[in-house]
Amino acid sequence: MSAKPRVVIVGAGFGGMAAARVLGRGVADVVVVDRDNYHGFWPLLYQVATAGLDAQDIALPVRRSLSRLPGVEVRLGAVERVDTDRQLVFLADGNAPLTYDYLVLAAGSVTATFGVDGVAEHAFPLKTIPDAVGLRNHLITRFERLDAAPETAQPGDLDVVVVGGGPTGVELAGALSELIGADLARDFPHLDLAHAMIHLVEMTDQLLGAFSVASRERARRDLVARGVDVKLGAAIRRVAADHVEFADGTSLPAGTVVWAAGVRPSPLATALDLPLSTRGGVVVGDDLSVPERPTVFAIGDLATAIDPDGRPYPQLASVAIQQGRYVAHVIERRIAGRPTPRFQYRNRGIMATIGRRAAVADLPLGVHLGGSLGWFSWLGVHLVFLMDTRRRALVLLKWAWSYLTWEHGSRAIVNEGEHTPAGPHRA
Amino acid sequence: MSAKPRVVIVGAGFGGMAAARVLGRGVADVVVVDRDNYHGFWPLLYQVATAGLDAQDIALPVRRSLSRLPGVEVRLGAVERVDTDRQLVFLADGNAPLTYDYLVLAAGSVTATFGVDGVAEHAFPLKTIPDAVGLRNHLITRFERLDAAPETAQPGDLDVVVVGGGPTGVELAGALSELIGADLARDFPHLDLAHAMIHLVEMTDQLLGAFSVASRERARRDLVARGVDVKLGAAIRRVAADHVEFADGTSLPAGTVVWAAGVRPSPLATALDLPLSTRGGVVVGDDLSVPERPTVFAIGDLATAIDPDGRPYPQLASVAIQQGRYVAHVIERRIAGRPTPRFQYRNRGIMATIGRRAAVADLPLGVHLGGSLGWFSWLGVHLVFLMDTRRRALVLLKWAWSYLTWEHGSRAIVNEGEHTPAGPHRA
Repeated sequence: MSAKPRVVIVGAGFGGMAAARVLGRGVADVVVVDRDNYHGFWPLLYQVATAGLDAQDIALPVRRSLSRLPGVEVRLGAVERVDTDRQLVFLADGNAPLTYDYLVLAAGSVTATFGVDGVAEHAFPLKTIPDAVGLRNHLITRFERLDAAPETAQPGDLDVVVVGGGPTGVELAGALSELIGADLARDFPHLDLAHAMIHLVEMTDQLLGAFSVASRERARRDLVARGVDVKLGAAIRRVAADHVEFADGTSLPAGTVVWAAGVRPSPLATALDLPLSTRGGVVVGDDLSVPERPTVFAIGDLATAIDPDGRPYPQLASVAIQQGRYVAHVIERRIAGRPTPRFQYRNRGIMATIGRRAAVADLPLGVHLGGSLGWFSWLGVHLVFLMDTRRRALVLLKWAWSYLTWEHGSRAIVNEGEHTPAGPHRA
Repeated sequence: MSAKPRVVIVGAGFGGMAAARVLGRGVADVVVVDRDNYHGFWPLLYQVATAGLDAQDIALPVRRSLSRLPGVEVRLGAVERVDTDRQLVFLADGNAPLTYDYLVLAAGSVTATFGVDGVAEHAFPLKTIPDAVGLRNHLITRFERLDAAPETAQPGDLDVVVVGGGPTGVELAGALSELIGADLARDFPHLDLAHAMIHLVEMTDQLLGAFSVASRERARRDLVARGVDVKLGAAIRRVAADHVEFADGTSLPAGTVVWAAGVRPSPLATALDLPLSTRGGVVVGDDLSVPERPTVFAIGDLATAIDPDGRPYPQLASVAIQQGRYVAHVIERRIAGRPTPRFQYRNRGIMATIGRRAAVADLPLGVHLGGSLGWFSWLGVHLVFLMDTRRRALVLLKWAWSYLTWEHGSRAIVNEGEHTPAGPHRA
């Protein structure tokens, strides 16, 4: 066995993988733990939900991704708790705990319901691959059911209410308008899709709050031009099986409600016995280590780190990636006995796509792109950052096909979850 | 409403789709009913089970496939029973029954356990997409578990017993040897994969019983060369959680048992109140109609049709396709008042692939191909018959990638089935 320091990284998301790639170069022995065996490319999750891509297109097996780094081990498992005094990580599988010299907590976030009544029971979240596939299957099944029995039609049957005007909500609403307007209109010629409305509901008075005024307005205009009903300043009070109720007492019928209103740090945070911020994140200092626990770091959506202006960093992949690389360098320098500068986030820009030849991008130096230019830059950036060459080629092929044919190819309702030997198709 | 005769086709498999494509050209109004919204390309199912392809690659949405045929309607639903006196088809969804002038029963087959003890509880079938995904996830999870706790190793933990030496068993065993020998060996460098044996168990004294002697022997040799343990003349008496027991009293430990020993006609057959053969198929005459029910036809795996030599036709896609086209022509001729010749099957050949540059093909006129030549012809035939241009391009890209890199790309364990809004990842 080597005498190198041992680093345990909890979470194989953007932050954890970035840290592993740096540390795996040799200075430490690294163990990456995740409850899933893949790294999800979440910026494209909405395309899985809208039948443009398949689950495996955005799921890169963690072992494959790290296979060229001999110092990195991968462990499939859910972290149950951490003992920061004895420096042990306990997994739910009951095997011996993992020991560490340095711990990087990068477990990410989960959908936040904000305590709104009925969300957990009736709304579809969009945070994981099962979420995306579940939403896709539900939506297409609604069309099938109404087609089979048009006399049972209820108001709003085919309508979709997307709650949350951030990038997820905007991108999903745009992609849904294309899925319904092109594919489902062709697939269901007898249904009157004039009634298949997409409502994008945002509590504040603007979409894409983190974007420039120009991009916000452009996104709203692009969505409206695609037939999306954008409701601003509309807070949801309750989600029911067939409608949503607003704070002002009005309601809207909807066969499908998607909850994309926000995220909160992974529940793992509360199991850690570490100081948490009011938003539930692990509080960290300027070097992203936990106060009084200098060998424990937290990054990405799980952490609450404060920028030099006193604001928490936004919950973005680029923040997580930069924080992952940064803590890896901090650990390298600590091992070498050198001091480290504080974390500094470099804004590389933010983007959101609305649909064919329509996206907004706010780049550094005040550059705002929209329309076709924004869309091509969105395509380029996402292809470059996509996981591996194979997936890049597959996704490019699927995008090109969809662009040329107006078709989203993955519309089969596949209930892949019925996994047990005694499954439903058995004799 | 048109006054055309109405044909209901139960099942969107090879037979049902072939019939719909002919009848949809105009002479009748056609309704295709299936419990799934996709047509599965089952010859490639084993590649989904071994991470080479994704579920959507072999699942073509039925509506899309038939969208250019205006006379064809599609109905998602499970057929519960048929009233052949009143000519009604009842669906499980409780909607009004479908009326028909002609009925084509093409509901296919399901896995047959042959009453062997423990199969339903402990063996993985390989007949549906959920079967394939379940098998893939189970197998990779076994490797993950042992890697996490090597001290818990039991004999046969990583071994796979494939029961059934027909094309499904042969193709699966060959593909498994590549998945384990290449991908999983790379992914799990600490596991001793010398213990990850693949046993292919066949009750008779030969693999690929329907093939020529040359092809059978070649397939066996190719499998053995790839490290597969081929056990002939070995009948399974019982499947248990961690081993299989043979009729001779011996047993074999196995962490994974795949049951590919055979199929039987869909349980729908027994709900039809029609005469059934001893193998459970709907008995049909020379024109594939049910005796004394001239407007009811049964085709493919659901039917028991007897060839001119007195033997039942084999359960092959090509039989189902030819029978589907044939009954469509029979119905067209009946509508036109013309007599029909009896069904004649044209043997187009049979093929099975073992792995990279190894396949066997028995073609008409006594042509037997093997090795690289067999493999390239297998690739060509399957690409040509694959469903649509998009999937053809995607599958070709995935095959080329796998061939060049020795990698099966779809190894992410995605439990797509956890579909409800209150899923496990929710806050």
